[in-house]
Amino acid sequence: LQLVDIGEAGLLTQLFGFCDRTLVGDDAAVLPWLAGRSPVVTTDVLVDGVHFSDRTTPPHAIGWRAIAANLSDLAAMGAEPIAVTVGLSLPGTVAIDWVEALYGGMADCLAQFGGVIAGGDVTRSPVAVVAITAIGALETDSSRTIRRDVAQAGDVIVVTGNHGAARAGLAWLLDDWPGQSPDPANPEIIAWIAAHQYPRPRFDAIAQLDRLRREVFDQGGVDRPIAGMDSSDGLADAVVQLARASGLAARLDRLPIPPGLAAAVGSERAIDWTLYGGEDFELVLCLPPELADRWVQAVGGAAQVIGVMVDRTDSEPIAAWQSAPGHWSALTQAQGFQHFAVESSIAQP
Amino acid sequence: LQLVDIGEAGLLTQLFGFCDRTLVGDDAAVLPWLAGRSPVVTTDVLVDGVHFSDRTTPPHAIGWRAIAANLSDLAAMGAEPIAVTVGLSLPGTVAIDWVEALYGGMADCLAQFGGVIAGGDVTRSPVAVVAITAIGALETDSSRTIRRDVAQAGDVIVVTGNHGAARAGLAWLLDDWPGQSPDPANPEIIAWIAAHQYPRPRFDAIAQLDRLRREVFDQGGVDRPIAGMDSSDGLADAVVQLARASGLAARLDRLPIPPGLAAAVGSERAIDWTLYGGEDFELVLCLPPELADRWVQAVGGAAQVIGVMVDRTDSEPIAAWQSAPGHWSALTQAQGFQHFAVESSIAQP
Repeated sequence: LQLVDIGEAGLLTQLFGFCDRTLVGDDAAVLPWLAGRSPVVTTDVLVDGVHFSDRTTPPHAIGWRAIAANLSDLAAMGAEPIAVTVGLSLPGTVAIDWVEALYGGMADCLAQFGGVIAGGDVTRSPVAVVAITAIGALETDSSRTIRRDVAQAGDVIVVTGNHGAARAGLAWLLDDWPGQSPDPANPEIIAWIAAHQYPRPRFDAIAQLDRLRREVFDQGGVDRPIAGMDSSDGLADAVVQLARASGLAARLDRLPIPPGLAAAVGSERAIDWTLYGGEDFELVLCLPPELADRWVQAVGGAAQVIGVMVDRTDSEPIAAWQSAPGHWSALTQAQGFQHFAVESSIAQP
Repeated sequence: LQLVDIGEAGLLTQLFGFCDRTLVGDDAAVLPWLAGRSPVVTTDVLVDGVHFSDRTTPPHAIGWRAIAANLSDLAAMGAEPIAVTVGLSLPGTVAIDWVEALYGGMADCLAQFGGVIAGGDVTRSPVAVVAITAIGALETDSSRTIRRDVAQAGDVIVVTGNHGAARAGLAWLLDDWPGQSPDPANPEIIAWIAAHQYPRPRFDAIAQLDRLRREVFDQGGVDRPIAGMDSSDGLADAVVQLARASGLAARLDRLPIPPGLAAAVGSERAIDWTLYGGEDFELVLCLPPELADRWVQAVGGAAQVIGVMVDRTDSEPIAAWQSAPGHWSALTQAQGFQHFAVESSIAQP
């Protein structure tokens, strides 16, 4: 059964079941709201053949990733997820099953991390485009809002996990592995594929940060805003942006390379994927030294310290990593994504 | 200059100037928020060749319409516009000037009716898709929230203006006029083209309603919720939906046909466009009789009474209009839009 068979009205009826019924059915959705909160809003657009592909990602995972990417932006602000809207453009030849699996993936991600589908729009298009807007909530004027421009010299740069795994999973799914493609039963490969298909927004790490801030600051210390962002466009991009927005320089003395990746693809490529692979949807935070180690221990897993924020000088790069003792290599944003460049490859977001 | 020449980063820099600079630049935008308000959210997706076309609509007007359509949904809830996000997918061959004109149209509409661009996403796509999400504000648990399901038998059905003008403008722009195409210098044609290209969300009519409710209800009367919605999918669709959601039947004894339309295209087609043309972005409200006439007078222009809500019976249509004295014709949703149907014509939204 294809969309042409049931039409827009038929599809909307099917999709209604995935939405919060108390919110949909009017011209707009009035969100449930607690006093003293402000809305936090973010949008991502995913295009078939650019950001996803049936070659690499089943529709359930496309739906999950689309939601996870937006929720990750909310987590990176310190916000709590409330609702999403889904703007969906689809060719009439798309199977109803495909659309239901897509919404199933969205609903599963929301069920796990919070928030509901508050409505959206469905329309015909020559190419599938999924535009998600997520609305979160933050205490109004809260010092717990996480921003990019409030890092201080001496802050410890931490990450919630390793980077490059999603890129490795994508390479395997694209059959674009450097050298002999590894056995898909390999547990590392399974984890890397999962990192690409089912990323997890790190609200857990923000909850730990909030708890520690209450412990450390509310009992005598002076609270201050924390800088951070998510690593959707790559670890290097996040580090450069945090340093630039805060008027500082970042120095990394350790890269969060996934275990086994260097052995599987070589050191140089493992480093490249870790810095520039993107879409790991981890958080990069700049923590006061008195919080950093306790936070790493509380978050667990692959959370780790990777460097430090320092004062900026004109003669040195804004961000660099120590590739050998005493030898610093500059990090760039230039290897980030250029979606409009004609050489962009499929599913290279 | 095309998008491929400047890339995603270059385009984002250009578009930054259209955004509220206090809101963009982080993972998500924290909206300015007054205590006691709840967010109201709505999304619309417009696809090149389906909802707009360079044949009919310059990019400035595409931007204006995209915003106006979303703001109209906020007006139809009684909400005040606060911010929008813009999810934009574009082929690399699109001219930078086109994108800037698009954003210029969005910014002009927001400047006139309220709200700012709080961010968004830009990505490459084989076809241009504009996905807008608008966030408005309503007093939490306010009885002034306008819903579809709260009409009462005896309510007077009113509209903020005539219907069918946008459809007439579209027909002229598509060079699909029935019979000899009229002179574009004809003031009626100019108004109909403007109705299609530059629709105006009717916040003014809601402001008048709020004022009258305060006058009538706050001074002794008992306030009650008001039913209404916008007519983006056509007048007949709005009337049917209001009646269905409220468990009532709608009886129209007058159609808000634009002056001159019947003379220009014949009575039958004028009626069809008025009922089913769509995209006029007027409001259809169900008012208590003691408010209706005063509201029509206060709003002015082509605001008018068109009918009444009555109790529903099993044997009669949910909505009908009096096509001749004592003769009632049923209104249907079936002539609404079926975007996935293969016979959909270009720019027939």
